[in-house]
Amino acid sequence: MEDKFSAALRQTAQLMDRELDALLPESTNPEWQLHDAMRYAVLSGGKRLRAFLVIQCADLFDVAREYSVPVACALEIMHTYSLVHDDLPCMDDDDLRRGVPTVHKKFDETLAVLAGDALQTLAFEILADPKTHPSGSVRAELVRKLAQAAGGHGMVGGQTMDIYANASEISVPVITRLQQLKTGALIAFACEAGAILGHAAPAQITSLRAYAHDLGLAFQITDDILDVEGESTEMGKATRKDVDAGKATFVSLLGLEKAKIHANMLAGQASNHLSIFRNNADLLRDAATFTVQRKK
Amino acid sequence: MEDKFSAALRQTAQLMDRELDALLPESTNPEWQLHDAMRYAVLSGGKRLRAFLVIQCADLFDVAREYSVPVACALEIMHTYSLVHDDLPCMDDDDLRRGVPTVHKKFDETLAVLAGDALQTLAFEILADPKTHPSGSVRAELVRKLAQAAGGHGMVGGQTMDIYANASEISVPVITRLQQLKTGALIAFACEAGAILGHAAPAQITSLRAYAHDLGLAFQITDDILDVEGESTEMGKATRKDVDAGKATFVSLLGLEKAKIHANMLAGQASNHLSIFRNNADLLRDAATFTVQRKK
Repeated sequence: MEDKFSAALRQTAQLMDRELDALLPESTNPEWQLHDAMRYAVLSGGKRLRAFLVIQCADLFDVAREYSVPVACALEIMHTYSLVHDDLPCMDDDDLRRGVPTVHKKFDETLAVLAGDALQTLAFEILADPKTHPSGSVRAELVRKLAQAAGGHGMVGGQTMDIYANASEISVPVITRLQQLKTGALIAFACEAGAILGHAAPAQITSLRAYAHDLGLAFQITDDILDVEGESTEMGKATRKDVDAGKATFVSLLGLEKAKIHANMLAGQASNHLSIFRNNADLLRDAATFTVQRKK
Repeated sequence: MEDKFSAALRQTAQLMDRELDALLPESTNPEWQLHDAMRYAVLSGGKRLRAFLVIQCADLFDVAREYSVPVACALEIMHTYSLVHDDLPCMDDDDLRRGVPTVHKKFDETLAVLAGDALQTLAFEILADPKTHPSGSVRAELVRKLAQAAGGHGMVGGQTMDIYANASEISVPVITRLQQLKTGALIAFACEAGAILGHAAPAQITSLRAYAHDLGLAFQITDDILDVEGESTEMGKATRKDVDAGKATFVSLLGLEKAKIHANMLAGQASNHLSIFRNNADLLRDAATFTVQRKK
């Protein structure tokens, strides 16, 4: 039988597919190829864990779903743009993503660059739309926080480190910072967005930030473990890429056993940060457990 | 002797170089290559015509420069991101821009994609920053309008048309729409941003939109003329590219003579739209004249 968390995550994914479908452009204009590529990238599945975190964190503050759902969509769109560009031949050069050909394989490189560009723009357009939230200050704050998380001091900075860092120079502190930028910053935004929408008190924001920090790292360490242990068919993308490329990962630095212990420790720690929310945060605690127990 | 307009444009360019230098990230962190590439792209000169339009249009409403200048910077950064990605090998494949090697030539393709990505993000971060404007609604509206101008229904949509449209199917109405998206939308934002900052009346917004519309087209037609008549050394980029590629342009569709007449007509019409601003808009009228008389 499906447990409560799995059901909630599945429902979020279904909700996202519907909402994203409505938000994405569709046209018969000469630029239809672009819109096709954007839709293909965003609507090719995915766990929608980031959307789940936005909605669940906002729920802690009784934020209306009509506000949290568009923010969740914007974040999924931003995440998708980063995947499309990361998969490019000049980046990680991946052929498979979420079990289907990557955008530059399905279409071409030009459309992959352009679709990624337009998806990033769309994420900000959604956050700034009065339909997303009646308060201009809240909208602007969401834009600012997402930009900080995604830009040169966040996700793109992390991706740059990941590509240009010399494997021999990467230590555990270095890879921790790298991953905090590359994947942690967007996960932190997911949790903080709920707090912004809910006008959370400083102590609540601190708790959510700490939760997101540990969750993000646990998520990345598990990704590294799955790259070694996971099955390509189940993962929907190539595995053992990092190992084969001789790349420094948490597994190469800590060893498989220690990496697992570390990920589990972080997931437990993430849950503990939520104590001020009592039972209201149970699904977020389940998300931490899921993060380290997932098989893809 | 330098005329009033040339002096004002030159002063804006100098101001932009200082302000952009302060806004762009600089670091010795492992992601320094990214920040280097971002700085290189943005600080390699340029006419800064878009920044000039933001500031001059805002001046019509006595908007404090402390508000209009950051918006001008955000727009120049957005414009630069589009140039960096347009120059990529999988796009227009250009080696020279503003007289210096393009970002992927100076650095590499990976950094050109990443620097473009991070520049787009930075543009939105600046607009959403409380330092840019005290009103959250104004900040959010600036973000929304820039996103609409730059995204899949704006600049990136136009670039997609430009790359995928079949030359034989392009007529004057089609290329007009293409260019309105590709270059016109950002120029329209420049003028509208001033109106948003200045809480302009509807009639004033209508005038500025009409001005921007005609100016944007005149600008693009002149670009097409310069691609045929201009000198590569003076232009700082390759010329005769469109001709050699057999691409449809205003010149190929109208002929050189008619294209010049059309551009001049549009520039005059642009100026006429500013009548409600009386003499206050003289520099904007000069900008229209400059747009069609420039040599690069």
